[in-house]
Amino acid sequence: MARLIEYEDASAEVRAVYDDIKASRGVPDVNNFWKALAVHPPTLRRTWESLKQVMAPGALDPLTKELLYLAVSIAHGCEYCIASHTASARARGMNEEMYGELLAIVGMAAETNRLATALQVPVDARFRDDH
Amino acid sequence: MARLIEYEDASAEVRAVYDDIKASRGVPDVNNFWKALAVHPPTLRRTWESLKQVMAPGALDPLTKELLYLAVSIAHGCEYCIASHTASARARGMNEEMYGELLAIVGMAAETNRLATALQVPVDARFRDDH
Amino acid sequence: MARLIEYEDASAEVRAVYDDIKASRGVPDVNNFWKALAVHPPTLRRTWESLKQVMAPGALDPLTKELLYLAVSIAHGCEYCIASHTASARARGMNEEMYGELLAIVGMAAETNRLATALQVPVDARFRDDH
Amino acid sequence: MARLIEYEDASAEVRAVYDDIKASRGVPDVNNFWKALAVHPPTLRRTWESLKQVMAPGALDPLTKELLYLAVSIAHGCEYCIASHTASARARGMNEEMYGELLAIVGMAAETNRLATALQVPVDARFRDDH
Amino acid sequence: MARLIEYEDASAEVRAVYDDIKASRGVPDVNNFWKALAVHPPTLRRTWESLKQVMAPGALDPLTKELLYLAVSIAHGCEYCIASHTASARARGMNEEMYGELLAIVGMAAETNRLATALQVPVDARFRDDH
Amino acid sequence: MARLIEYEDASAEVRAVYDDIKASRGVPDVNNFWKALAVHPPTLRRTWESLKQVMAPGALDPLTKELLYLAVSIAHGCEYCIASHTASARARGMNEEMYGELLAIVGMAAETNRLATALQVPVDARFRDDH
Repeated sequence: MARLIEYEDASAEVRAVYDDIKASRGVPDVNNFWKALAVHPPTLRRTWESLKQVMAPGALDPLTKELLYLAVSIAHGCEYCIASHTASARARGMNEEMYGELLAIVGMAAETNRLATALQVPVDARFRDDH
Repeated sequence: MARLIEYEDASAEVRAVYDDIKASRGVPDVNNFWKALAVHPPTLRRTWESLKQVMAPGALDPLTKELLYLAVSIAHGCEYCIASHTASARARGMNEEMYGELLAIVGMAAETNRLATALQVPVDARFRDDH
Repeated sequence: MARLIEYEDASAEVRAVYDDIKASRGVPDVNNFWKALAVHPPTLRRTWESLKQVMAPGALDPLTKELLYLAVSIAHGCEYCIASHTASARARGMNEEMYGELLAIVGMAAETNRLATALQVPVDARFRDDH
Repeated sequence: MARLIEYEDASAEVRAVYDDIKASRGVPDVNNFWKALAVHPPTLRRTWESLKQVMAPGALDPLTKELLYLAVSIAHGCEYCIASHTASARARGMNEEMYGELLAIVGMAAETNRLATALQVPVDARFRDDH
Repeated sequence: MARLIEYEDASAEVRAVYDDIKASRGVPDVNNFWKALAVHPPTLRRTWESLKQVMAPGALDPLTKELLYLAVSIAHGCEYCIASHTASARARGMNEEMYGELLAIVGMAAETNRLATALQVPVDARFRDDH
Repeated sequence: MARLIEYEDASAEVRAVYDDIKASRGVPDVNNFWKALAVHPPTLRRTWESLKQVMAPGALDPLTKELLYLAVSIAHGCEYCIASHTASARARGMNEEMYGELLAIVGMAAETNRLATALQVPVDARFRDDH
């Protein structure tokens, strides 16, 4: 299990990232993910900078972005990520009905993904030209 | 590669499903996925009935549902599903900017999913109680 | 794409494995998988020896073994393996009805696997003691 | 971790599904999976109806069906599903020898699946025509 | 299939990234991966900047880094990535013997990964304290 | 959770494998993985013989082999394997800087693997001929 680096034990480089996370999110402390990732400061900094950019408001709204992050985390079977992004999605407005529909879609996609792969279905001509 | 069962070669049971897909979607023919799945009529019917229920409008709008379906299909590496759901998402309103952001989220989630798994990060207490 | 090593171009070490595959299976030539794996003779030999042992008749009959191999290959999304083990399963007696039921199970398992992971369902006490 | 909805706290809609599961399986209570899935009654009902249909006796016997379900659950890395389907397979007659052979096949398939993917082995002509 | 954006059709923003890739790698043109990713310039830039940082010489030498990249790409089943990183690894010094050993390790790990997951092996106390 | 078979409860066949593992590795006891795998002695023996062959010194040095094993185990999400191979890699000389770089590569590969798959990037002609 990961060694977690707390703020008081962190280098100046790591503290700078923690400070930015706390300020950007308005939270008193960073999640365990960041405390574990601090084992390698360059990866900590790069990952945070990338995540901040990717999850910033854009053509997709913040809730939709969190729903997508959660769905992918379920597909990859990452327990920590499922727990943290379920919480983030709820904080952004995901209610029980939305959560249930997301679960249904992830499960359904898993099923049809395997069926299409099993059957080695040839891609329809009109999908190949679609872009 | 899958044997595709065309309408004119299909049993009455299979035709009934094809007819419902065409009517529900307002399309002249069904996708190759259904023509391949027709190898097993009970699975064809059950899968279509489930998909129709899952993708019906609900607390999540049709575009968000398609974006989720596409994101999961990418995570599972299903080529056919990626092709067909990229097309469906575009048909429901996904523009280039949204597509780019979806790609960024799927990639970012894949990265942090693996990092959290590698580090075996313990779930924060506040996430465990979140429901 | 893999370089395929044909019998006439193979070393004595590789030929010995090809000969054993052909004799064991009663076939005139080995599949492309073995011709590609011959790039590394120790891995070719070890893989063949292991496969021969694992797929030999045992408590599970040969058809059940092939069905399991096919199901796992679908879950892992290996195109080559799906093609070759679908053929092997048919050669061992898998008919269309069995194939359809296998597809249904693989798809259903994919769906409930993701649902159970998403929900982080605690294992029932009686399952924990089951062995 | 999932919130589990017990029978006494469940809506009439959820109770009806629980009742059908208990009657169909002849068990005094449903597994945690169903209690967690009850967070979204339509998904609970649809998943149960599908599972009941897919796992009913057919061209494949109930033990073979459970072995396939278990093998796929291992390939997908679903801890809960592995625990529950290992128990179900044992209940249907899987003995230690069968279990050991199933493990060997799942492991062996994982290995050759990765090797075939790594080598990008072209599908043999005779497999492409096989259906 | 992806739309590929060639240099002459690219925006100034995309050209700047292409120029940096070509200069850093000393190549006359960028790979198709970058031409496809140019559909979303911010993801193109961020991905390239991250990759450049991650693959720069460090505590691990460039060949080891490429071998790791290839091994992970095989595990994830990404055909394009397998093709491109097999080529990159060869360019950095991977010979046939090294390639064969890498294949053997990836296959072996796939096998024992599934076995350990199937058996739900409890982590040895001395591994839990190891960091 | 797995039943662990201790040396004193093991059959002569299992003890012989345990003895070889202990002698080869110079350790007083075998890891839980082997104690769990002993449920099926033929799989125990075959897996150990294969692993011993695959991880023996060759064209790749022992540390590189362990790094590859760890990277693949992360990609497959095997908790036990991540714990045991992180420990093995440290024992073979992986320091914090190397570990951080390995994490960065695994994460980065996961990201670009998904992006290339999502975009269905056609393989560059020069990669197709590369072998």
